[in-house]
Amino acid sequence: MFGNVFSKGVINKAREKRVVEVHVHDLRDYTKDKHKQVDDRPFGGGEGMVLKPEPIFSAVEAVRKKKKSPVILLSPQGERFDHRLAEQLAEEEQIVLICGRYEGVDERVVQHSITGEISIGDYVLTGGEPAAIVFVDAVSRFVTHVVGKEESVRQDSFSSGMLDFPYYTRPRDFRGLKVPEVLFSGDHAKIEQWRRQKAFEKTARIRPELLMNKKLSQKEKSILKEIHWERKER
Amino acid sequence: MFGNVFSKGVINKAREKRVVEVHVHDLRDYTKDKHKQVDDRPFGGGEGMVLKPEPIFSAVEAVRKKKKSPVILLSPQGERFDHRLAEQLAEEEQIVLICGRYEGVDERVVQHSITGEISIGDYVLTGGEPAAIVFVDAVSRFVTHVVGKEESVRQDSFSSGMLDFPYYTRPRDFRGLKVPEVLFSGDHAKIEQWRRQKAFEKTARIRPELLMNKKLSQKEKSILKEIHWERKER
Repeated sequence: MFGNVFSKGVINKAREKRVVEVHVHDLRDYTKDKHKQVDDRPFGGGEGMVLKPEPIFSAVEAVRKKKKSPVILLSPQGERFDHRLAEQLAEEEQIVLICGRYEGVDERVVQHSITGEISIGDYVLTGGEPAAIVFVDAVSRFVTHVVGKEESVRQDSFSSGMLDFPYYTRPRDFRGLKVPEVLFSGDHAKIEQWRRQKAFEKTARIRPELLMNKKLSQKEKSILKEIHWERKER
Repeated sequence: MFGNVFSKGVINKAREKRVVEVHVHDLRDYTKDKHKQVDDRPFGGGEGMVLKPEPIFSAVEAVRKKKKSPVILLSPQGERFDHRLAEQLAEEEQIVLICGRYEGVDERVVQHSITGEISIGDYVLTGGEPAAIVFVDAVSRFVTHVVGKEESVRQDSFSSGMLDFPYYTRPRDFRGLKVPEVLFSGDHAKIEQWRRQKAFEKTARIRPELLMNKKLSQKEKSILKEIHWERKER
């Protein structure tokens, strides 16, 4: 499942530059029984299968290079993954990710084998694999030399705590839809101001909670009020 | 990049059963110039490249089967994706996903080609592809016949607004770590009560905000208080 995902695009370039390594391990390789069974029925009853403790403990012990490398279980039960956490984790030399599956994972893994449990969002996936793809991508972006200068700028725009401003490129007129004139003014201060206002409006409309702890200008306060009333009238 | 992801696991089974179809389209196939250029510099200055309007408008017009099929741009600027939204979208006959890339996407796409903009979480990805993988997985789970009875139960557990309770499976004793005795009691009411309490404790510890709008029993209130004080003392 992971083959192609990490062999394309930015992550693949990072692997070629040897600034990021991604290794995929199959839990079945860490079982000791003939059937390579990684899951079993839950004690106490209930539907579905639970990942057994032994293969996970053994796999973690085999692949973890340093005692302090974080071991993270990806599951909907975890701490919410975000920009800040991705940036922090990019400092680590190695991170071991465990993809949850089926009903869940034996609680002894959660209590004694991992250092943290992370959720990429409030939705349920068929397994932890899509979450691992997202995790590797978001964390790798913060590793030095993975993305160029232009991309780092974009990080800053997200860290500013607002959504991004609108972008326009050629053609100037597409089916009668025109690029705003201000972008051709050559007046950088004016363009900057326009972009900041558009970013603010978009944030206020879609994710107003991101503005909660920000200091707002008089103008921004009045925009926020206007959008609030627009919503109520709908 | 998408090849293997949708050819394995639950999503592949759903495709084989013909209850879900996944089609991947390359924007370059919808360009008209010799170089198949899908991006260009932003007007008004700035680093990075912006996805051009024409290829996206053309691609959407070509693949959208019904005028009311949702067309969703995956980007960090969107509405937050969650369990409830995944369930709603599973009702749609067709969903067109656009994977954002580079600096961003021409704003005329956002204003006139799509019906919504969705973000899978507050982090930045190198492109919309990992988000599309997560989206397809989370939405497909809600399509009838994609997951079995056991999995549907798990949906309910998430919809209850609390994190899941701990699971245990064999062996009963793993390196001295034992499965809680209550799970062997055979007393289903008691097991249910224990599971609910554990789910509550976990939620209170990791995601207390999920409990904000819930009616709590006296006991739950006192657990919440205790955990709150534990945190302060740390």
